[in-house]
Amino acid sequence: MGYDALHERFRRIGDLNHALAMLSWDEAVMMPTGSGGVRGEALATLTGMVHELTAASETGELVDAAAQAELNPWQAVNVAKIRRDWEAARAVPADLVRALSRAASTCEQTWRVARGENDWGAVVDKLRRVLDLTREKAQALADAFDCDPYDALLDSYEPRLTRRDIDPVFSELEAVLPGMVDDALARQPAARAPLGPFPLDRQEALGRALMAEVGFDFERGRLDVSHHPFCGGDPDDTRITTRYNENDFLESMFAVLHETGHAMYEQGLPKDWRGQPVGSAGGMALHESQSLLMEMQVCRGLPFIEFAAPIVQRTLLGAPTDAPEWQPDNLVKLAAKVERGYIRVDADELTYPLHVILRYRLETALLDGGLGVDEIPDAWHESMSASLSLSTAGNFTDGCMQDVHWFAGLLGYFPSYTLGAVMAAQIFRSARNQIRGLDDAIREGSFHVLFDWLRQHVHGRGSLLPSLDLVADVTGSRLGTDAFLDHLRTRYALV
Amino acid sequence: MGYDALHERFRRIGDLNHALAMLSWDEAVMMPTGSGGVRGEALATLTGMVHELTAASETGELVDAAAQAELNPWQAVNVAKIRRDWEAARAVPADLVRALSRAASTCEQTWRVARGENDWGAVVDKLRRVLDLTREKAQALADAFDCDPYDALLDSYEPRLTRRDIDPVFSELEAVLPGMVDDALARQPAARAPLGPFPLDRQEALGRALMAEVGFDFERGRLDVSHHPFCGGDPDDTRITTRYNENDFLESMFAVLHETGHAMYEQGLPKDWRGQPVGSAGGMALHESQSLLMEMQVCRGLPFIEFAAPIVQRTLLGAPTDAPEWQPDNLVKLAAKVERGYIRVDADELTYPLHVILRYRLETALLDGGLGVDEIPDAWHESMSASLSLSTAGNFTDGCMQDVHWFAGLLGYFPSYTLGAVMAAQIFRSARNQIRGLDDAIREGSFHVLFDWLRQHVHGRGSLLPSLDLVADVTGSRLGTDAFLDHLRTRYALV
Repeated sequence: MGYDALHERFRRIGDLNHALAMLSWDEAVMMPTGSGGVRGEALATLTGMVHELTAASETGELVDAAAQAELNPWQAVNVAKIRRDWEAARAVPADLVRALSRAASTCEQTWRVARGENDWGAVVDKLRRVLDLTREKAQALADAFDCDPYDALLDSYEPRLTRRDIDPVFSELEAVLPGMVDDALARQPAARAPLGPFPLDRQEALGRALMAEVGFDFERGRLDVSHHPFCGGDPDDTRITTRYNENDFLESMFAVLHETGHAMYEQGLPKDWRGQPVGSAGGMALHESQSLLMEMQVCRGLPFIEFAAPIVQRTLLGAPTDAPEWQPDNLVKLAAKVERGYIRVDADELTYPLHVILRYRLETALLDGGLGVDEIPDAWHESMSASLSLSTAGNFTDGCMQDVHWFAGLLGYFPSYTLGAVMAAQIFRSARNQIRGLDDAIREGSFHVLFDWLRQHVHGRGSLLPSLDLVADVTGSRLGTDAFLDHLRTRYALV
Repeated sequence: MGYDALHERFRRIGDLNHALAMLSWDEAVMMPTGSGGVRGEALATLTGMVHELTAASETGELVDAAAQAELNPWQAVNVAKIRRDWEAARAVPADLVRALSRAASTCEQTWRVARGENDWGAVVDKLRRVLDLTREKAQALADAFDCDPYDALLDSYEPRLTRRDIDPVFSELEAVLPGMVDDALARQPAARAPLGPFPLDRQEALGRALMAEVGFDFERGRLDVSHHPFCGGDPDDTRITTRYNENDFLESMFAVLHETGHAMYEQGLPKDWRGQPVGSAGGMALHESQSLLMEMQVCRGLPFIEFAAPIVQRTLLGAPTDAPEWQPDNLVKLAAKVERGYIRVDADELTYPLHVILRYRLETALLDGGLGVDEIPDAWHESMSASLSLSTAGNFTDGCMQDVHWFAGLLGYFPSYTLGAVMAAQIFRSARNQIRGLDDAIREGSFHVLFDWLRQHVHGRGSLLPSLDLVADVTGSRLGTDAFLDHLRTRYALV
């Protein structure tokens, strides 16, 4: 039997995951409002089938048989990853999986209404139920893998990531970022925003033009509109979305470039391992590193903006312009605007980590039992006051109810955002060290220089290494904050 | 155990079918050109899963157990239909299913290129292989159900339909239609087509406006663009498509109304039986009857055109007009234009049945062995010459290579188109007899009068009765040609 039967089984699972990815994209982008019921049922059934096929005894037998065979390195990692998925799928009782799924679905639906009404009271009991069940699930995984319960949750978003990896990084950022935000705000140069409105079809044309320049393969992907920008689909059919603000074209432009970073990663995954765990992208942190490398390291920097400015002018205005607000020196200031705000998803790269660290502190305490659900609003207010000098007293909508994650049962996800930013800086620093004239190549629009390098060192390696090992391998050192902090000091003139 | 376990099993199968319907819609409407490979794999895997779940021994055991329970009429028919599906799924060896699927896929791909190049030689061997395997499949089903092999194929598109039902209908049509076409062409009144171009967004607005007037539920459905118009999705998410001709808005308008007829059927299926065989639409013939009832019986008639003309003028021109070519008396002539042509999908309702009957004669002979694959082009040419006075000698593109059906292994499908037209006329005659003032209601845009009746008598009954029994039940007589021929004589002034 050897390895092939296991591979074939995961090809089938991969096809189910393709269907799930496409149905989820459709739900966010195309589906009419009244069709949520049938879609929800179908997604639950297909998700259940993936779980059944993964957790089946037969999978364990196939894994054992495959492990006996002579395996190349990719096969060996694939078998090891499948074994881990199999063990994880069996560690959590089916009853608990169903109960958590139901509780999270109820809680999320309540949250969707209650958030707009600033009604914390409406969700608190439902959130408590979600957290209780999540704690149970984390404990079941922790028992199976003999690890910390929060680490067990982290593992499902970024394999092998632990609190021990996160803590030093977040502690360093927490210590220096508030001061850096103060400094950046004090030194922030004046900039003038080009005046809209900018018709949506021109903004879309701009997004498409830049995607094409960067190297997005439109033969295997699309750009559409959704409520929140995301990258969905799969490596052979990568679908990104954006939303348009008629008065600020930069919002959508950077959202498109961010999602294009995700998409380039997907499109660069190894062709021979489609649908197999080893051929999939690394975890959420590494994925986010690729979108932030694109958006923050490349596209908000001067070389890219010098490249893009003529395209922006032509596409939005129909012709080049000498008007000062449309020139690179002004646009680059707009691209690096810092502002203290309540909302994580609207935050700039300097304040963003503070939003994430707040959530990390709270969710680890929630899981450990050191923080009660009732205490979330006060803890949020205190933390926001301390790190960003903003009060959220009585403001749940823009405070502890702003993100869907906890209400949907997603604990352990938040650290990915900031680890991704830190990884992005470290990987991009290596790219600049290793690729002679990278800034010039970007200024000239020769993005293949960067993406050839990324395909070789990151994208094309799939999940062959755990993400932190991959970062260490590519950059020559363990993940640390120095590249990220250097990048911030340079961009925000904090040296 | 009783009935519920079987129901639950088909709920899961229904969810897989939902995924298949959406992935197929996406493939035709949204998918980028380079993503066909992964999509084809995923569709094959999900189709295989539906087949496995249907054909499994467990299904047979659940059917036997359910049949012992006390069942209401819907449950009883559901169990009977599932038993039939189960038997059909087991009758054809899995090897043969795979071989036919592969042969048809190869043949269809070759046909896609060869049709444009008028290259019959490129497909003839591949078509022979498809037909040989189809004959094998038909024989396997015929053995299992003790029936005629062609009837076994018919059954898969329109359950319980047989050649004995088709032959008298087609013989009558074949005898009278060529003469009626002559007469209609001789008497055809002059009409002036409104001059385009008509911008696509206005045509789309027109289609949407008419769909909404008719009663299409946009909360549970969409209108999009594809190469060929179709109705896809499912009852809770019904997705129709059209294509636009800039110079002829009537083409797209009637295509949208035709697909809306399909969609109204889907949206009117019984809510309590979603995903179950008994709750699905009747076969292809009954489905086509609902699109043709809409397009041919209702929308190409004067009452509808009197209703629609002001909407057409406002939407396409921005304001009402007195120009004669935009008035109902002229538009209704354009809607009833007769023309002898090579292409079935472009045919009017008077010549269309002759195209279908040609294919029926040929495909039954192909299956019986009375006609060889080599002889198709000559037989096609002779039949077209006899029925429509058109030569297809040497013209494969517009002759025997124009339709995908045979090349894709779809034998037994063609009769549905014309049986649907005949059913539509007979059902609509009953509707007019039973609904006082139906023409006036249509002229006033009160379509709910018609659709309330159709929901009660047709749509809401799902597959509770075989389609021919349903038609007989609704209209009080077995399917015959009189209503259809009366309709043609009236519309084309042939009395």
